[in-house]
Amino acid sequence: VALRLGLIGFGGVNRALVDLLQSRGLSGNGEFIITAVYDLRSGSAFDRNGIDFAALSSAGTESDALHAISEHRFTDGGDLVGSDAVDVIVEASYTNAESGEPALSLCRRALDAGKHVVTTNKGPVAFGLRDLTGLAKVKRKDFLFEGAVMSGTPVLRTIRNCLPGARVNGFRAILNGTSNYILARMESGQSFPDALKEAQSKGYAEADPTADIEGADVALKVAILANLLFGTDIRPHEISCSGISGLTPEMAIAAREDGMRWKLIGQASRLEDGSYRAQVGAMKLMDRDPLASVNGVTNAITLLCDPLGPVTICGPGAGRVETAYAILSDLLDIASHI
Amino acid sequence: VALRLGLIGFGGVNRALVDLLQSRGLSGNGEFIITAVYDLRSGSAFDRNGIDFAALSSAGTESDALHAISEHRFTDGGDLVGSDAVDVIVEASYTNAESGEPALSLCRRALDAGKHVVTTNKGPVAFGLRDLTGLAKVKRKDFLFEGAVMSGTPVLRTIRNCLPGARVNGFRAILNGTSNYILARMESGQSFPDALKEAQSKGYAEADPTADIEGADVALKVAILANLLFGTDIRPHEISCSGISGLTPEMAIAAREDGMRWKLIGQASRLEDGSYRAQVGAMKLMDRDPLASVNGVTNAITLLCDPLGPVTICGPGAGRVETAYAILSDLLDIASHI
Repeated sequence: VALRLGLIGFGGVNRALVDLLQSRGLSGNGEFIITAVYDLRSGSAFDRNGIDFAALSSAGTESDALHAISEHRFTDGGDLVGSDAVDVIVEASYTNAESGEPALSLCRRALDAGKHVVTTNKGPVAFGLRDLTGLAKVKRKDFLFEGAVMSGTPVLRTIRNCLPGARVNGFRAILNGTSNYILARMESGQSFPDALKEAQSKGYAEADPTADIEGADVALKVAILANLLFGTDIRPHEISCSGISGLTPEMAIAAREDGMRWKLIGQASRLEDGSYRAQVGAMKLMDRDPLASVNGVTNAITLLCDPLGPVTICGPGAGRVETAYAILSDLLDIASHI
Repeated sequence: VALRLGLIGFGGVNRALVDLLQSRGLSGNGEFIITAVYDLRSGSAFDRNGIDFAALSSAGTESDALHAISEHRFTDGGDLVGSDAVDVIVEASYTNAESGEPALSLCRRALDAGKHVVTTNKGPVAFGLRDLTGLAKVKRKDFLFEGAVMSGTPVLRTIRNCLPGARVNGFRAILNGTSNYILARMESGQSFPDALKEAQSKGYAEADPTADIEGADVALKVAILANLLFGTDIRPHEISCSGISGLTPEMAIAAREDGMRWKLIGQASRLEDGSYRAQVGAMKLMDRDPLASVNGVTNAITLLCDPLGPVTICGPGAGRVETAYAILSDLLDIASHI
């Protein structure tokens, strides 16, 4: 029997997922079928027996493009979540950095309705990890979110499955490719505004780059990682947070001359007294720090493990296909549990 | 019920394991007990109900030191492997780089006798991965060897558990801390013989450093990784292999001035026609390569994943406690399957 997927959000990531399932021969009976899709802009589609993959692949991006596929319409994401023709909700909609909504409520509703949930959206995980994980446990369903941190680079999976018997007492990480790219350009003498403009022209930075350069995007990821590692319930806005807009090319160049590099670092640690510290800010790292040489849009995290010491994982931090792969890896995990 | 461990080899690694099990509260009923130990030099000990951990911890390193603990003697490792009081053989003896023996035969015998096998010894894995994995499958036992590559850094576990749905088409890696340390010293102008002498005085290099500096140690690890990733049965001596003794400080310094660094790289890849290539040799890497900044005795591997691209894992490549942790992680995996 195929796992029946309901996609919420039909932008680059979930479109890449459709292609990935097809190219891997995982689309169809025995593997995965897509029975429902809802997107704020592209509209919705439904087929209890599985929507034709080719039709989804070729769907345009114009308003209500999905409506050409099927008669049935969902009024919103919540309507889709209630469908009895869906086993797994794949949530890849827009991140709301203030509250995680409406994705947070949607994920809760989906778990409540007895669906597995896979999300690449930082919002619901940063604001609701404890809550949603607890609910998933009660419902005996999976709540998985590998794509919420460093896209498909297997960071969360490593923390969960690959360090049995080790205690991770903290981490330091480069979790935003945009700011990392800008910092590298400033080391070559470019001013902050020029480097930002270049990042925007290359598609690395959004029209409103505030969340990337002032640390708010990193704070969401630090909250996710800290809460996953420490079992805490830290909220993103409780994390002391600053960005890179105060740095100048002169500072970046001077650091290089001293054998150091400025990086925007998100970090958290477990203190001796059992409390926790989490923060985001620009830091000078020694050249020999494994994070110092992480370039461009690549991301990286150093896990401080006891015993073992520092273990660093570097990989893509974003990207349509890379994030779609994160979903695929979560879906295969769910399939393997069934 | 406790899993009953039989330790083969009682040097630094298995002694560190004894301490680690105790400090983690995993020594005793419900967790792990050690019923049998055999070491070529320290002799042997046995207690069907579990040897006292404190007695093992305080055992000296002199000849036959273990004989103070119990009456029962094993004549050799094979004798221990046959014991009906052992569920898991923990093999951490000396690596024979020519044939993997006698550890290879011991592991085979242990699996044949229906024991799980955990080893940190590169020999049996490099020469017998396909054979031993097949046997373990037939016997429905685990054959685990996280510690054979990069000590406890979870490289093999990541390959096995953390990249579902991805194809790893190749890897490039720094797998020998001794040669990596020497290369760094040569970048500071030290001659090869002086750098080697310094590595020896710090305990990073053996009295006979040939296997470390001429690539044979790396070739064992490349065979393990390639065979695990590609399902091949490549033998270490089939891998084209050269080392770092031909490099000079002048070459190391000139590379740095060009924004590059010499590294001893082990690599393998799957080619388009389905064949495989594996080799070991010194290479100049661009500064921006994540492996270029891997310093001292740290090891690292870049996995070339489809989709996803390069994912790099850096961590300790050796060490008593780090390797003992690898055993612990394998033991916890076995315990979780039971």
